[in-house]
Amino acid sequence: MSLDLTLHHFPLDPASRQVRLALGEKRLAFAEEQVRYWERPASLVKMNPSGLTPVLCVGTSRDPLVLCEGRAILDYLEETHPEPPLLGRDPAERAEARRLMQWFDRKFDYEVGGFILHEKMEKRLLGLGAPDLASLRQGREALRGHMLYIDSLLADRDWLAGSRLSLADFAAAAHLSVIDYFGDVPWADFQAVKTWYMKLKSRPAFRPLLADRWPGLAPAPHYDDLDF
Amino acid sequence: MSLDLTLHHFPLDPASRQVRLALGEKRLAFAEEQVRYWERPASLVKMNPSGLTPVLCVGTSRDPLVLCEGRAILDYLEETHPEPPLLGRDPAERAEARRLMQWFDRKFDYEVGGFILHEKMEKRLLGLGAPDLASLRQGREALRGHMLYIDSLLADRDWLAGSRLSLADFAAAAHLSVIDYFGDVPWADFQAVKTWYMKLKSRPAFRPLLADRWPGLAPAPHYDDLDF
Repeated sequence: MSLDLTLHHFPLDPASRQVRLALGEKRLAFAEEQVRYWERPASLVKMNPSGLTPVLCVGTSRDPLVLCEGRAILDYLEETHPEPPLLGRDPAERAEARRLMQWFDRKFDYEVGGFILHEKMEKRLLGLGAPDLASLRQGREALRGHMLYIDSLLADRDWLAGSRLSLADFAAAAHLSVIDYFGDVPWADFQAVKTWYMKLKSRPAFRPLLADRWPGLAPAPHYDDLDF
Repeated sequence: MSLDLTLHHFPLDPASRQVRLALGEKRLAFAEEQVRYWERPASLVKMNPSGLTPVLCVGTSRDPLVLCEGRAILDYLEETHPEPPLLGRDPAERAEARRLMQWFDRKFDYEVGGFILHEKMEKRLLGLGAPDLASLRQGREALRGHMLYIDSLLADRDWLAGSRLSLADFAAAAHLSVIDYFGDVPWADFQAVKTWYMKLKSRPAFRPLLADRWPGLAPAPHYDDLDF
């Protein structure tokens, strides 16, 4: 593999984590640049006008192909490096994986991340003061609903979108893993979800995520424990 | 084409409109069911646990394939009915179309629709009272930024993602067209964007959107005017 890849990402960004998991699962080596996106660095905005991570640069020339936004990067990787397939083998299977990606990237992100990560992470990064307890409670209550939904999927399936590991699992795990960094996932009450997450956590692609640490933000003690 | 398609949608929902445009452009006939999603009808939640439109049912049997969430439906249509291609002809072109789809579905929706459509449409549908003028102003200011961005893309390109019409144009037009229903797009200040939108508006696939009317929500006088 002579392709040169550089990922610009923030370690605790769920969208960035999905791309890191896909790159790992496809065994694509990549250089990485960590980006403090909340400071809106000019170098990031120049690559991606939305100012968001992740950004994947392909090629080392002075004029690399710049890929922006998580879904676009994941689809690009799937099209250009189809093995192993992470979106399913027929259109119906892929539609189910994509439905769930949307679920986690929009609904989960809005109802859970928008409260828990905003209160515990973004406010800290931006220097906006202490977490609001009512907002945290709202995020935690929504999280229980999502855990129940994941649990219901796993009652009939080995993986979230069906019989095969897919980007739906990575979407869910990316969002959950950042919440877990802050210790807010009620694993004990959802054994099937915990078992599914343990399987993901022990994959080689997951290891770099478990090694993530951000200055001033300490992870929960069990965060990188494979047998939590 | 013997495939039976039924689209469950809300006429003024930008995500639903993107699917209607793609179906029209691919000349796929479909039955439609209009859904009052804000009432969370049981029939909708049974098909799509997120409770969101659009939902596309494929097949007339008692056990149709149920496709949920806009991006998943659009990708399914692209995979199963590749002509005309609406995502570009190579991975880099497709990545650019998908970057812009994300831009409109997330950034525009959050910064513009979340204010203007919430104040003028959702509050009306939900009986939540009069629009808040400060929120409307905030949405309109953000909209000008997005118009500038579209304008900058069109300085170098015939269509938003490049030399060919793509789902990026449909994403932008779907979001803008609902704002335009409520008369809030400052067309006069952005002539290049207006010319691009006129080209889209005159395509056959756009006609059904221009005929949309919702009881109690009157469109701006120019809404269905091709020469506005």
